[in-house]
Amino acid sequence: MTAMTELSALDRYFDAMPPAAAMRIRAERFDGDLLALHAPLTANLNDKGCAFGGSLASVMTLAGWGLLTLKLKRAGLDAEVYVADSQVRYLAPLYDDLRAEATLSDGGDWDAALHCFRSRGRARLALGALVRSADGRLVASLQARFAIMPQTNGGQ
Amino acid sequence: MTAMTELSALDRYFDAMPPAAAMRIRAERFDGDLLALHAPLTANLNDKGCAFGGSLASVMTLAGWGLLTLKLKRAGLDAEVYVADSQVRYLAPLYDDLRAEATLSDGGDWDAALHCFRSRGRARLALGALVRSADGRLVASLQARFAIMPQTNGGQ
Repeated sequence: MTAMTELSALDRYFDAMPPAAAMRIRAERFDGDLLALHAPLTANLNDKGCAFGGSLASVMTLAGWGLLTLKLKRAGLDAEVYVADSQVRYLAPLYDDLRAEATLSDGGDWDAALHCFRSRGRARLALGALVRSADGRLVASLQARFAIMPQTNGGQ
Repeated sequence: MTAMTELSALDRYFDAMPPAAAMRIRAERFDGDLLALHAPLTANLNDKGCAFGGSLASVMTLAGWGLLTLKLKRAGLDAEVYVADSQVRYLAPLYDDLRAEATLSDGGDWDAALHCFRSRGRARLALGALVRSADGRLVASLQARFAIMPQTNGGQ
């Protein structure tokens, strides 16, 4: 699959999830190690006219989930990806569209996680995601652990 | 205000926030120390037919935010409440409607936080929230710190 096809595949997942569709989350860029998602501010406002914390957490979580999902597909593995736990820091209000970038966490190892899933049928991996304002300031960060599990229903 | 009026006031906040309105979040119960929110599963599905992690995080975060907002109003204080950081654990998939209950975290002290806000103009407080399945099993938990700040725009 080309990166464009991979982004379209993620968009179909988001369209099929009512809360992600309502937040108008879109896959924007994937370079093999970093996945960037976008969601417009208008669909994600809080009571103060800036980005809702739950939307920031959702976009960052889906960036990590999407990155891991694409890595598994590139490795030819059928698996389901669940978020197991996360820590989010909200550093400043965001008055721009939401753009989250997910990457492997420091100390993480793609090959080890994929090898573990292949040999044991399940694995865990820590990913991080960031949201920056239009002028480059860090406004929110997430660290999350994801569980990689066998598919139970033959795929989606 | 009666508890019913307080719940209606929260619902108006949720209706005015596009992502919370899309998740169809409703304030269900407030007894002075515990706030319960509800959101239907249909509006909060993920790709696997269970509750989206971002929706669970959003409902729990808004339960904490709403509890603190109502406590401040009962104390006659005009303030804005922001989530500062949070930790979420996703323990099991949820195939029921989302029901989150928020309370003060262990070791927290309402009076101390309100006194701090009155004397210094800002304060922080840790709240916790839980989601249980219809049969009472814990499926997700949140611990979050909220910042209480002066209103900057004369209120909402």
